[in-house]
Amino acid sequence: MNSEMLVRITRYYRALNRLRAIGLEKVFAHNLADAAGVSAAIVRKDFSQLGIRGQKRGGYEIGDLVDRLGAILGKGDPQNVIIVGCGRIGKALMHYSGFEPDGIRIVAGFDTDPVVYSEVSYPVPVYPISRLGEIVGALDVKVAIITVPEASAADVAERIREAGIHGILNFSPITLKPHVGEDGTRSDVIHNINIALELEQIFYELKFPAIK
Amino acid sequence: MNSEMLVRITRYYRALNRLRAIGLEKVFAHNLADAAGVSAAIVRKDFSQLGIRGQKRGGYEIGDLVDRLGAILGKGDPQNVIIVGCGRIGKALMHYSGFEPDGIRIVAGFDTDPVVYSEVSYPVPVYPISRLGEIVGALDVKVAIITVPEASAADVAERIREAGIHGILNFSPITLKPHVGEDGTRSDVIHNINIALELEQIFYELKFPAIK
Repeated sequence: MNSEMLVRITRYYRALNRLRAIGLEKVFAHNLADAAGVSAAIVRKDFSQLGIRGQKRGGYEIGDLVDRLGAILGKGDPQNVIIVGCGRIGKALMHYSGFEPDGIRIVAGFDTDPVVYSEVSYPVPVYPISRLGEIVGALDVKVAIITVPEASAADVAERIREAGIHGILNFSPITLKPHVGEDGTRSDVIHNINIALELEQIFYELKFPAIK
Repeated sequence: MNSEMLVRITRYYRALNRLRAIGLEKVFAHNLADAAGVSAAIVRKDFSQLGIRGQKRGGYEIGDLVDRLGAILGKGDPQNVIIVGCGRIGKALMHYSGFEPDGIRIVAGFDTDPVVYSEVSYPVPVYPISRLGEIVGALDVKVAIITVPEASAADVAERIREAGIHGILNFSPITLKPHVGEDGTRSDVIHNINIALELEQIFYELKFPAIK
């Protein structure tokens, strides 16, 4: 499976959970295609590659699809996430309810500022960053969201790795790169989301529609 | 110029502005390469394609590069942005200082909730969504950030388009697609950032390192 197919599978999985939540039992390839922004032919091809067959007239069983795609996506495993940097964006993400349908749980926050971590208004506990290793081990955390200012992002990423976390979603404007081992393998999975850069690209594509 | 090169140019531009802000006057291809996460050979190739030459020993003039890349990126134009949906994430983005070095200005917020838009604690004015068309015209807005809940995202996107905005950065979990004209051209530029989906993909890539 390549990474484009993985993106599609996660989109199908999300759409299926939502359809199930509103009481549907069956779904057709073209419904999933609409939800995932692809063609029905691609949905059928993906499912065929995964050995999943629909019934000719009735479409696919939603419950069965959720179980099978969930197993592929490792949904049985705990998906515990921490947030490092409890400023406005970090705090907004702690309160974000959109993670729950996907089984993702924000379990703790970390900050360097004693004023921040002694506050009690957070929906999850917030700890000083010096306790990162201890808490990460206790809570079985695999992924961290970085929402610290640019100046401390690289240092924070290093401390996160030292604490044994190898998955990072980075919102700081610094582009973090995965460590590459001597044999060329990457031990970290890092996704960088640079909001200012996204906006700049939109302005540019509006100005020069030929690009893209 | 393809979209990968555009991403690199915007990264160079950001790095150059930061280097200039701390007083540097010259930069070498390998400095920009480090900042943009590419090789120095790629920086030199990009600049050569744009007709930009460095001096053999001294590197590139930062001020000159900023002017030339800025012209390519349309930096003379106002980059006014509105935020539609003034919940926690929308509000956090209004306060985000990381846009300013790039010339991006958040000029207004919109919400459907009278309680929200009558509050005075925002760093920019917040209006009822019914005034979208009027304010967008008055402030010369080209791009909107959508931070509304899933259920209202599609409707909000439609109202934004009707107000004459064709650039959207969408943080709602719905995948918004650009309108396609009868001749196959796309009139909108839409970037979707789905935070839950990013996290899911990170978990998946950690579990199956062969993907990617």
